[in-house]
Amino acid sequence: MKTNNKVFIATSLDGYIADKNGGIEWLHAIPNPENSDMGYGNFTAQIDALVMGRTTFETVYGFDIDWPYKKPVYVLSNKLKEVPGELKDKVFLVKGTLTEVLAQIHKNGHNNLYIDGGKTIQSFLKEDLIDSITITTIPKLLGGGFPLFAELPKMLDFECSESKVYSNKVVQNTFIRKR
Amino acid sequence: MKTNNKVFIATSLDGYIADKNGGIEWLHAIPNPENSDMGYGNFTAQIDALVMGRTTFETVYGFDIDWPYKKPVYVLSNKLKEVPGELKDKVFLVKGTLTEVLAQIHKNGHNNLYIDGGKTIQSFLKEDLIDSITITTIPKLLGGGFPLFAELPKMLDFECSESKVYSNKVVQNTFIRKR
Repeated sequence: MKTNNKVFIATSLDGYIADKNGGIEWLHAIPNPENSDMGYGNFTAQIDALVMGRTTFETVYGFDIDWPYKKPVYVLSNKLKEVPGELKDKVFLVKGTLTEVLAQIHKNGHNNLYIDGGKTIQSFLKEDLIDSITITTIPKLLGGGFPLFAELPKMLDFECSESKVYSNKVVQNTFIRKR
Repeated sequence: MKTNNKVFIATSLDGYIADKNGGIEWLHAIPNPENSDMGYGNFTAQIDALVMGRTTFETVYGFDIDWPYKKPVYVLSNKLKEVPGELKDKVFLVKGTLTEVLAQIHKNGHNNLYIDGGKTIQSFLKEDLIDSITITTIPKLLGGGFPLFAELPKMLDFECSESKVYSNKVVQNTFIRKR
Protein backbone atom coordinates (compact mmCIF):
# COMPACT_ATOMS: atom_id res chain seq x y z
CA MET A 1 0.00 0.00 0.00
CA LYS A 2 1.47 3.33 -1.05
CA THR A 3 0.79 5.86 1.67
CA ASN A 4 1.17 9.59 1.91
CA ASN A 5 0.45 10.22 5.53
CA LYS A 6 1.72 13.48 6.91
CA VAL A 7 2.09 14.91 10.36
CA PHE A 8 2.17 18.66 10.97
CA ILE A 9 2.42 19.44 14.64
CA ALA A 10 3.96 21.71 17.24
CA THR A 11 5.94 20.41 20.18
CA SER A 12 7.86 21.97 23.01
CA LEU A 13 11.65 21.80 22.89
CA ASP A 14 11.41 18.74 25.13
CA GLY A 15 9.00 17.03 22.73
CA TYR A 16 5.63 17.49 24.39
CA ILE A 17 2.39 18.26 22.56
CA ALA A 18 0.47 19.11 25.73
CA ASP A 19 1.66 20.14 29.18
CA LYS A 20 1.28 18.21 32.44
CA ASN A 21 -2.36 19.32 32.72
CA GLY A 22 -3.17 18.63 29.08
CA GLY A 23 -2.95 22.38 28.37
CA ILE A 24 -1.74 23.90 25.10
CA GLU A 25 -1.73 27.60 26.06
CA TRP A 26 2.10 27.58 25.88
CA LEU A 27 1.75 27.02 22.11
CA HIS A 28 0.45 30.55 21.74
CA ALA A 29 2.84 32.19 24.18
CA ILE A 30 5.35 33.00 21.43
CA PRO A 31 5.01 36.51 19.99
CA ASN A 32 4.00 36.29 16.34
CA PRO A 33 4.20 39.90 15.15
CA GLU A 34 3.92 38.98 11.46
CA ASN A 35 0.89 36.85 12.28
CA SER A 36 2.50 34.05 10.26
CA ASP A 37 0.56 30.81 9.89
CA MET A 38 3.94 29.05 9.95
CA GLY A 39 3.25 27.07 6.80
CA TYR A 40 -0.12 25.70 7.90
CA GLY A 41 -1.96 27.06 4.83
CA ASN A 42 0.62 25.62 2.44
CA PHE A 43 0.53 22.31 4.25
CA THR A 44 -3.24 21.93 4.26
CA ALA A 45 -3.41 22.91 0.57
CA GLN A 46 -1.50 19.69 -0.12
CA ILE A 47 -3.75 17.31 1.76
CA ASP A 48 -7.03 15.68 0.74
CA ALA A 49 -8.39 14.88 4.19
CA LEU A 50 -7.57 14.65 7.90
CA VAL A 51 -7.47 11.59 10.09
CA MET A 52 -7.75 11.99 13.84
CA GLY A 53 -8.79 10.06 16.92
CA ARG A 54 -11.99 10.48 18.87
CA THR A 55 -10.27 12.47 21.64
CA THR A 56 -8.92 15.09 19.25
CA PHE A 57 -12.25 15.24 17.41
CA GLU A 58 -14.20 15.76 20.64
CA THR A 59 -11.69 18.38 21.82
CA VAL A 60 -11.93 20.40 18.60
CA TYR A 61 -15.73 19.98 18.45
CA GLY A 62 -15.90 21.21 22.06
CA PHE A 63 -14.15 24.50 21.22
CA ASP A 64 -16.50 27.47 21.01
CA ILE A 65 -15.62 28.10 17.35
CA ASP A 66 -16.98 27.22 13.91
CA TRP A 67 -15.81 23.83 12.62
CA PRO A 68 -12.27 24.75 11.55
CA TYR A 69 -11.53 22.19 8.82
CA LYS A 70 -12.37 22.72 5.17
CA LYS A 71 -11.22 19.23 4.17
CA PRO A 72 -13.06 16.02 5.09
CA VAL A 73 -12.16 14.70 8.54
CA TYR A 74 -12.04 10.97 9.23
CA VAL A 75 -12.43 10.12 12.90
CA LEU A 76 -11.04 6.80 14.08
CA SER A 77 -13.47 5.38 16.58
CA ASN A 78 -14.94 2.02 17.46
CA LYS A 79 -17.18 3.73 20.01
CA LEU A 80 -18.85 6.67 18.30
CA LYS A 81 -22.05 5.71 16.47
CA GLU A 82 -22.74 8.94 14.61
CA VAL A 83 -21.44 12.44 14.09
CA PRO A 84 -23.30 15.59 15.18
CA GLY A 85 -25.92 16.57 12.58
CA GLU A 86 -24.25 19.78 11.41
CA LEU A 87 -21.05 17.88 10.61
CA LYS A 88 -22.68 15.07 8.59
CA ASP A 89 -21.02 16.08 5.32
CA LYS A 90 -17.72 17.05 6.97
CA VAL A 91 -16.85 14.32 9.43
CA PHE A 92 -16.81 10.58 8.75
CA LEU A 93 -16.41 7.79 11.25
CA VAL A 94 -14.01 5.01 10.33
CA LYS A 95 -13.08 1.86 12.21
CA GLY A 96 -10.98 -1.28 11.98
CA THR A 97 -7.24 -1.72 11.72
CA LEU A 98 -5.26 1.21 10.34
CA THR A 99 -4.68 -0.71 7.11
CA GLU A 100 -8.42 -1.26 6.72
CA VAL A 101 -9.15 2.36 7.57
CA LEU A 102 -6.62 3.62 5.03
CA ALA A 103 -8.09 1.33 2.35
CA GLN A 104 -11.55 2.82 3.00
CA ILE A 105 -10.21 6.38 2.84
CA HIS A 106 -8.15 5.78 -0.30
CA LYS A 107 -11.25 4.33 -1.98
CA ASN A 108 -12.80 7.80 -1.56
CA GLY A 109 -9.92 9.28 -3.53
CA HIS A 110 -8.28 10.76 -0.45
CA ASN A 111 -4.61 9.80 -0.62
CA ASN A 112 -2.75 12.70 0.94
CA LEU A 113 -3.70 12.57 4.57
CA TYR A 114 -3.02 14.82 7.53
CA ILE A 115 -2.65 12.51 10.49
CA ASP A 116 -3.43 14.42 13.67
CA GLY A 117 -3.67 13.93 17.42
CA GLY A 118 -1.06 12.42 19.72
CA LYS A 119 -2.45 8.90 20.09
CA THR A 120 -3.30 8.62 16.39
CA ILE A 121 0.16 9.73 15.29
CA GLN A 122 1.72 7.24 17.71
CA SER A 123 -0.37 4.35 16.41
CA PHE A 124 0.45 5.22 12.79
CA LEU A 125 4.17 5.36 13.68
CA LYS A 126 3.97 1.99 15.45
CA GLU A 127 2.88 0.47 12.13
CA ASP A 128 5.38 2.58 10.15
CA LEU A 129 2.58 4.35 8.28
CA ILE A 130 3.91 7.90 8.51
CA ASP A 131 5.70 9.39 5.48
CA SER A 132 6.54 12.87 6.66
CA ILE A 133 6.61 14.77 9.92
CA THR A 134 6.76 18.55 10.18
CA ILE A 135 7.57 19.64 13.69
CA THR A 136 7.30 23.26 14.75
CA THR A 137 9.42 23.52 17.87
CA ILE A 138 8.12 26.00 20.41
CA PRO A 139 11.35 26.88 22.22
CA LYS A 140 10.22 26.12 25.75
CA LEU A 141 11.12 23.32 28.08
CA LEU A 142 7.83 22.28 29.65
CA GLY A 143 9.47 19.75 31.93
CA GLY A 144 6.69 17.21 31.52
CA GLY A 145 3.50 16.47 29.61
CA PHE A 146 2.18 14.30 26.81
CA PRO A 147 5.05 13.39 24.43
CA LEU A 148 4.68 13.36 20.65
CA PHE A 149 6.68 10.16 20.32
CA ALA A 150 6.17 6.87 22.11
CA GLU A 151 7.82 3.45 22.22
CA LEU A 152 8.27 1.83 18.81
CA PRO A 153 8.85 -1.79 17.87
CA LYS A 154 11.68 -0.83 15.50
CA MET A 155 13.96 2.05 14.55
CA LEU A 156 12.67 4.24 11.69
CA ASP A 157 14.94 6.29 9.41
CA PHE A 158 14.02 9.77 8.23
CA GLU A 159 15.81 12.62 6.48
CA CYS A 160 15.47 16.30 7.27
CA SER A 161 14.16 17.84 4.05
CA GLU A 162 13.53 21.38 5.19
CA SER A 163 14.21 23.74 8.06
CA LYS A 164 12.80 27.22 8.61
CA VAL A 165 13.03 29.70 11.45
CA TYR A 166 9.96 31.89 12.04
CA SER A 167 10.15 35.27 13.81
CA ASN A 168 13.76 34.39 14.76
CA LYS A 169 12.43 32.16 17.49
CA VAL A 170 10.52 29.14 16.34
CA VAL A 171 12.12 26.49 14.17
CA GLN A 172 10.17 24.17 11.91
CA ASN A 173 11.80 21.02 10.57
CA THR A 174 10.35 18.55 8.09
CA PHE A 175 11.45 14.92 8.18
CA ILE A 176 10.73 12.49 5.35
CA ARG A 177 10.58 8.74 5.95
CA LYS A 178 13.46 7.04 4.14
CA ARG A 179 12.32 3.58 3.12
CA MET B 1 25.93 34.54 39.16
CA LYS B 2 26.39 35.17 35.44
CA THR B 3 26.71 31.84 33.68
CA ASN B 4 27.60 30.84 30.17
CA ASN B 5 26.89 27.16 30.20
CA LYS B 6 26.41 25.57 26.82
CA VAL B 7 25.15 22.23 25.65
CA PHE B 8 26.18 20.77 22.29
CA ILE B 9 24.66 17.36 21.76
CA ALA B 10 23.07 15.01 19.25
CA THR B 11 19.72 13.40 19.80
CA SER B 12 17.47 11.15 17.79
CA LEU B 13 14.31 12.67 16.31
CA ASP B 14 12.46 11.32 19.34
CA GLY B 15 14.86 13.05 21.72
CA TYR B 16 17.12 10.23 22.91
CA ILE B 17 20.87 10.54 23.45
CA ALA B 18 21.40 6.77 23.76
CA ASP B 19 19.30 3.85 22.58
CA LYS B 20 17.52 1.25 24.74
CA ASN B 21 20.82 -0.58 25.32
CA GLY B 22 22.81 2.58 26.00
CA GLY B 23 24.26 2.36 22.48
CA ILE B 24 25.22 5.36 20.35
CA GLU B 25 26.11 3.58 17.09
CA TRP B 26 23.01 5.12 15.45
CA LEU B 27 24.72 8.52 15.83
CA HIS B 28 27.22 7.52 13.18
CA ALA B 29 24.78 5.79 10.86
CA ILE B 30 24.17 8.97 8.84
CA PRO B 31 26.33 9.28 5.73
CA ASN B 32 28.66 12.25 6.07
CA PRO B 33 30.30 12.51 2.64
CA GLU B 34 31.81 15.93 3.31
CA ASN B 35 33.20 14.66 6.60
CA SER B 36 31.71 17.73 8.26
CA ASP B 37 32.31 18.18 11.99
CA MET B 38 28.85 19.75 12.11
CA GLY B 39 30.05 22.82 13.93
CA TYR B 40 31.90 20.99 16.71
CA GLY B 41 35.22 22.77 16.04
CA ASN B 42 33.59 26.18 16.03
CA PHE B 43 31.70 25.34 19.20
CA THR B 44 34.70 24.08 21.16
CA ALA B 45 36.75 27.10 20.06
CA GLN B 46 34.32 29.22 22.09
CA ILE B 47 34.52 27.30 25.34
CA ASP B 48 37.09 27.45 28.14
CA ALA B 49 36.45 24.06 29.72
CA LEU B 50 34.12 21.07 29.85
CA VAL B 51 31.97 19.89 32.74
CA MET B 52 30.76 16.31 32.78
CA GLY B 53 29.61 13.66 35.20
CA ARG B 54 31.57 10.65 36.37
CA THR B 55 29.68 8.28 34.06
CA THR B 56 30.53 10.27 30.93
CA PHE B 57 34.14 10.70 32.09
CA GLU B 58 34.56 6.96 32.69
CA THR B 59 32.91 6.15 29.36
CA VAL B 60 35.22 8.46 27.42
CA TYR B 61 38.28 7.34 29.41
CA GLY B 62 37.32 3.73 28.66
CA PHE B 63 37.42 4.28 24.88
CA ASP B 64 40.52 2.91 23.21
CA ILE B 65 41.60 6.36 21.99
CA ASP B 66 43.86 9.19 23.09
CA TRP B 67 42.23 11.61 25.53
CA PRO B 68 40.08 13.60 23.10
CA TYR B 69 39.72 16.97 24.87
CA LYS B 70 42.17 19.83 24.45
CA LYS B 71 40.39 22.00 27.03
CA PRO B 72 40.36 21.32 30.77
CA VAL B 73 37.68 18.85 31.84
CA TYR B 74 35.93 19.20 35.20
CA VAL B 75 34.39 15.97 36.42
CA LEU B 76 31.52 16.22 38.89
CA SER B 77 31.96 13.47 41.42
CA ASN B 78 31.57 13.00 45.13
CA LYS B 79 32.97 9.48 44.78
CA LEU B 80 36.16 9.70 42.71
CA LYS B 81 39.24 10.45 44.81
CA GLU B 82 41.78 11.05 42.06
CA VAL B 83 42.17 11.12 38.31
CA PRO B 84 44.38 8.70 36.36
CA GLY B 85 48.01 9.88 36.40
CA GLU B 86 48.29 10.71 32.71
CA LEU B 87 45.28 13.03 32.98
CA LYS B 88 46.50 14.98 36.05
CA ASP B 89 46.86 18.27 34.17
CA LYS B 90 43.78 17.73 32.02
CA VAL B 91 41.03 16.48 34.29
CA PHE B 92 39.96 18.04 37.57
CA LEU B 93 37.54 16.63 40.11
CA VAL B 94 34.93 18.99 41.49
CA LYS B 95 32.23 18.42 44.07
CA GLY B 96 29.47 20.16 45.96
CA THR B 97 26.31 21.83 44.73
CA LEU B 98 26.31 23.04 41.13
CA THR B 99 26.50 26.63 42.35
CA GLU B 100 29.58 25.80 44.45
CA VAL B 101 31.12 23.86 41.56
CA LEU B 102 30.57 26.76 39.15
CA ALA B 103 32.10 29.21 41.62
CA GLN B 104 35.23 27.01 41.84
CA ILE B 105 35.48 26.76 38.04
CA HIS B 106 34.89 30.46 37.45
CA LYS B 107 37.66 31.22 39.97
CA ASN B 108 40.02 29.46 37.55
CA GLY B 109 38.99 31.89 34.81
CA HIS B 110 36.85 29.30 33.01
CA ASN B 111 33.55 31.00 32.28
CA ASN B 112 32.38 29.55 28.99
CA LEU B 113 31.56 25.96 29.81
CA TYR B 114 30.57 22.97 27.70
CA ILE B 115 28.15 21.01 29.86
CA ASP B 116 28.12 17.40 28.71
CA GLY B 117 26.55 14.06 29.56
CA GLY B 118 22.85 13.30 29.96
CA LYS B 119 22.59 13.35 33.74
CA THR B 120 24.77 16.44 34.10
CA ILE B 121 22.77 18.38 31.52
CA GLN B 122 19.55 17.38 33.27
CA SER B 123 20.79 18.52 36.67
CA PHE B 124 21.98 21.86 35.26
CA LEU B 125 18.57 22.35 33.60
CA LYS B 126 16.76 21.52 36.85
CA GLU B 127 18.54 24.49 38.42
CA ASP B 128 18.08 26.66 35.32
CA LEU B 129 21.83 26.91 34.79
CA ILE B 130 21.92 26.28 31.03
CA ASP B 131 22.25 29.29 28.69
CA SER B 132 22.31 27.66 25.29
CA ILE B 133 21.52 24.26 23.80
CA THR B 134 22.65 23.16 20.36
CA ILE B 135 20.86 20.00 19.30
CA THR B 136 21.93 18.07 16.25
CA THR B 137 18.93 15.96 15.35
CA ILE B 138 19.80 12.59 13.87
CA PRO B 139 16.67 11.90 11.82
CA LYS B 140 15.83 8.51 13.27
CA LEU B 141 13.06 7.43 15.58
CA LEU B 142 14.74 5.08 18.05
CA GLY B 143 11.49 4.26 19.79
CA GLY B 144 13.07 4.27 23.24
CA GLY B 145 16.28 5.02 25.11
CA PHE B 146 17.80 7.61 27.42
CA PRO B 147 16.12 11.00 26.83
CA LEU B 148 18.03 14.28 26.73
CA PHE B 149 15.37 16.08 28.71
CA ALA B 150 13.84 15.11 32.03
CA GLU B 151 11.20 16.45 34.41
CA LEU B 152 11.69 20.08 35.42
CA PRO B 153 10.31 22.03 38.35
CA LYS B 154 9.33 24.94 36.09
CA MET B 155 8.89 25.89 32.45
CA LEU B 156 11.97 27.46 30.81
CA ASP B 157 11.79 29.81 27.81
CA PHE B 158 14.32 29.67 24.98
CA GLU B 159 14.61 31.19 21.51
CA CYS B 160 15.86 29.44 18.42
CA SER B 161 18.87 31.49 17.34
CA GLU B 162 20.19 29.35 14.52
CA SER B 163 19.22 26.44 12.33
CA LYS B 164 21.42 24.57 9.84
CA VAL B 165 20.90 21.48 7.73
CA TYR B 166 23.98 19.31 7.13
CA SER B 167 24.26 16.96 4.15
CA ASN B 168 20.57 17.62 3.44
CA LYS B 169 19.71 15.24 6.24
CA VAL B 170 20.70 16.34 9.69
CA VAL B 171 19.34 19.51 11.21
CA GLN B 172 21.09 21.43 13.97
CA ASN B 173 19.19 24.00 16.00
CA THR B 174 20.57 26.32 18.65
CA PHE B 175 18.31 27.53 21.44
CA ILE B 176 19.25 30.42 23.73
CA ARG B 177 17.78 30.77 27.22
CA LYS B 178 15.55 33.84 27.37
CA ARG B 179 15.68 35.21 30.89
